[in-house]
Amino acid sequence: MDIDKYLTGKKRVIDAALGKIIPKETDFPQSLHRAIRYTLFPGGKRIRPILAMAAYEVVGGKGNGILPYACGLELIHTYSLIHDDLPALDNDNYRRGKPTTHRVFGEAMAILAGDALLTEAFHLMGREGLEGEADPRAVIEVIGEISRAVGLAGMIAGQVVDIESEGKKVELPILEFIHTHKTGSLILVSVRTGGRLGGARDVEMEALTRYGKAIGLAFQITDDILDVKGSRDSMGRPPGVDMARDKITYPALLGVEESKRRCDELIGQAIAALELFGNRGKHLREIANYIGKRNF
Amino acid sequence: MDIDKYLTGKKRVIDAALGKIIPKETDFPQSLHRAIRYTLFPGGKRIRPILAMAAYEVVGGKGNGILPYACGLELIHTYSLIHDDLPALDNDNYRRGKPTTHRVFGEAMAILAGDALLTEAFHLMGREGLEGEADPRAVIEVIGEISRAVGLAGMIAGQVVDIESEGKKVELPILEFIHTHKTGSLILVSVRTGGRLGGARDVEMEALTRYGKAIGLAFQITDDILDVKGSRDSMGRPPGVDMARDKITYPALLGVEESKRRCDELIGQAIAALELFGNRGKHLREIANYIGKRNF
Repeated sequence: MDIDKYLTGKKRVIDAALGKIIPKETDFPQSLHRAIRYTLFPGGKRIRPILAMAAYEVVGGKGNGILPYACGLELIHTYSLIHDDLPALDNDNYRRGKPTTHRVFGEAMAILAGDALLTEAFHLMGREGLEGEADPRAVIEVIGEISRAVGLAGMIAGQVVDIESEGKKVELPILEFIHTHKTGSLILVSVRTGGRLGGARDVEMEALTRYGKAIGLAFQITDDILDVKGSRDSMGRPPGVDMARDKITYPALLGVEESKRRCDELIGQAIAALELFGNRGKHLREIANYIGKRNF
Repeated sequence: MDIDKYLTGKKRVIDAALGKIIPKETDFPQSLHRAIRYTLFPGGKRIRPILAMAAYEVVGGKGNGILPYACGLELIHTYSLIHDDLPALDNDNYRRGKPTTHRVFGEAMAILAGDALLTEAFHLMGREGLEGEADPRAVIEVIGEISRAVGLAGMIAGQVVDIESEGKKVELPILEFIHTHKTGSLILVSVRTGGRLGGARDVEMEALTRYGKAIGLAFQITDDILDVKGSRDSMGRPPGVDMARDKITYPALLGVEESKRRCDELIGQAIAALELFGNRGKHLREIANYIGKRNF
């Protein structure tokens, strides 16, 4: 399939760039760089950086100027996974088919590796902001928006509410708060970062924002459905762990069928938002469909 | 004393600004904001932001343009304390005379509050970069330099080596690596941030860099000496915890007298570096003396 080829090609570019950014395992202190590389490679599908790249292209961004920012988004995503998996938080033993970072390198190193990845994301964007060709004001705007999306008004708020809701009876507005903040905000800001640095006009930024919001929530709903229906192969960890932890999920609240219906509806909204891009919106459209159809 | 008045006045300005930046305890999710405010207030002496402000002033920076960056440095410092105190790392129960964040709010919240503070620092600097009067390129440079100073080539590397050196026989070069990275790099970059945003000429940046390096190391040596000789009052935690944890310190390696001598030497170097500022260097000079004479 065309989209598979597109995703694989982009992942290769991103992985190569990440490999250059992160110090080698032989660099001092080796343990830190080993822990970081263990978590970062082979990694997942790199959906967030790919979204940034695809949004950059759809608004006419040229060359590889988006790549360092795309990599920064993946570093932030990876940090969030490491910390999320910690014993004090979700206490997950497996991620992407292998033992989680703290299981292999210990908790202290996992905390520090996460801290380092988050910090390195901003370092990377700052350095590229000086050396690259992007307008400095756009770079500052992007740094400000990304840090807001993953900070105490964004991803962290989602994390906190997620943890505090475990084992409690939670209504749909709280579940949507968790999902839009914990997962959705980083996906949305990935799309917006690509648009902003690619020189999107206002009307294009609005379209990308509608697209990013819709796929961000759809992504988390499919994650929830996979936790119920998925296999270890498609998840990289045993299915049912969210349910076992008494975490609130879409299927638990609405049932699998209604969750699927909502997901389809969101994907439809995402694709509708791309209308003004015409044929150029092809890749973003296919990514939306891809998210809507993940393995179930 | 003059310097006490100066430090108290600046601390008041910084505390007021931090109070406005951080959401109220009543804002959702309340637990997160309570944990952050608990750690941030009343806080310590705010030496890092004060250094940034004093360096800004010494090179002719006007008004309050440095304040958001100064606050960002304090947020980063506070994050590093929360994570450093965690059970998996230093496992400290007290900090500044009260129970550590994880003891009061639990480990999960302490990890997330630290993550949020680090992220918020970059958000604050990004927002100010857009709204403030600083040259956008200088803002990007500052963000890049701060994130480098506290990232995997800076503070985190110092943390990792510190943890891995516990209980081992460590030589002076490793101890200096730990101290210059774990403590020194944030102090140095605080001074340099003030200089850069205040419009320092190259020769002034060089002087501030020599000053910042010297006081950064002196600061940690005095910390080590306080751990041996200090009282609970002057430390905010029981003395001797570093020794008990078999952490390597200057007094353990060189003895108290030689450690004091090195500290005095560094303070002398710091003051010598200020020569080109003449009388304008008064506050930075007094801060150096203040660091050299902390409670012993």
